[in-house]
Amino acid sequence: MTRESPPAPDAGAFSRRVPAGDERERLVCDACGFVVYENPKVVVGAVCAQEDRILLCRRAIPPRRGFWTIPAGYLELNETTGQGAARETREEARAEIEIETLLAVYNVPRISQVQVIYAARLLSTTVSPGPESLAVDLVPWERIPWDEIAFPSVHWALRHYREYASGGPFATRANPPGEWGDY
Amino acid sequence: MTRESPPAPDAGAFSRRVPAGDERERLVCDACGFVVYENPKVVVGAVCAQEDRILLCRRAIPPRRGFWTIPAGYLELNETTGQGAARETREEARAEIEIETLLAVYNVPRISQVQVIYAARLLSTTVSPGPESLAVDLVPWERIPWDEIAFPSVHWALRHYREYASGGPFATRANPPGEWGDY
Repeated sequence: MTRESPPAPDAGAFSRRVPAGDERERLVCDACGFVVYENPKVVVGAVCAQEDRILLCRRAIPPRRGFWTIPAGYLELNETTGQGAARETREEARAEIEIETLLAVYNVPRISQVQVIYAARLLSTTVSPGPESLAVDLVPWERIPWDEIAFPSVHWALRHYREYASGGPFATRANPPGEWGDY
Repeated sequence: MTRESPPAPDAGAFSRRVPAGDERERLVCDACGFVVYENPKVVVGAVCAQEDRILLCRRAIPPRRGFWTIPAGYLELNETTGQGAARETREEARAEIEIETLLAVYNVPRISQVQVIYAARLLSTTVSPGPESLAVDLVPWERIPWDEIAFPSVHWALRHYREYASGGPFATRANPPGEWGDY
């Protein structure tokens, strides 16, 4: 993750009201009527493997500082989801990847996130922590620190990657039944 | 589509500059330093079928007014992608759907869009135009008006739906090679 969502800019000259022709409350400038459309954000990430080891990053920033995650963060303007996943891997683990397949699309509606997660092959032979990581590691499945994983969707992605890597036909995954990423 | 993206709110008291600790230009309030993070938006939609006929909507709003599309529009806050696709179908064609599978995730980086498109079954026996549609129709494959389709990604979605509906194992699709949705 690059950062948290900013607080809604409603402390100043904006009010929440329903603009003409709309059906929902929006942030509207009290002075000029400019409407700020707030929409969910896209998080992009990748489960990156080198043979049977998976890249994990120990978060140096909140939320969940000190817990382990996969490289992931907010998609930037004019970027594709694959480019974003590769950029996050570069920023957080100083590593290059090759995207293999679309692993999953997860929804976390409570925090208005859509997560687009790829399965990828690590091209770099070494990895090292970027500024948002305390440490990075290449971990075999048996050594994944399940109790120290940062977010529910990281659990899902690792399990879904395991299914993908076991071979055979693979269909892009969604949230496990009944799970929405709430703590 | 519900609406166009708003113009960037940079006409007033905001400047584009790189905040401390960031690597990109952001919209920053000249008065208080509040940072507006602009990110890509998620478009959700569905190819909705009733037996061998596909639901198309003739757009009543720009862009591409008068051209045909599938129900699609911007995902709203606290909504899942599946819920959003169902809502857009309700708004644009007064129809209920059951989601069958994740058909495709398309990127249109020029306009910072990620499109999450489902294959769905129409539950309603009748359809009728909502305020954003001039007309709606249930069209067999042979009668799809290919020259009057609103957007490249609608072409892709219809073709990918055809592949899905032909049976056999199906993997969620992405952009056709080399195509990014630019006109």
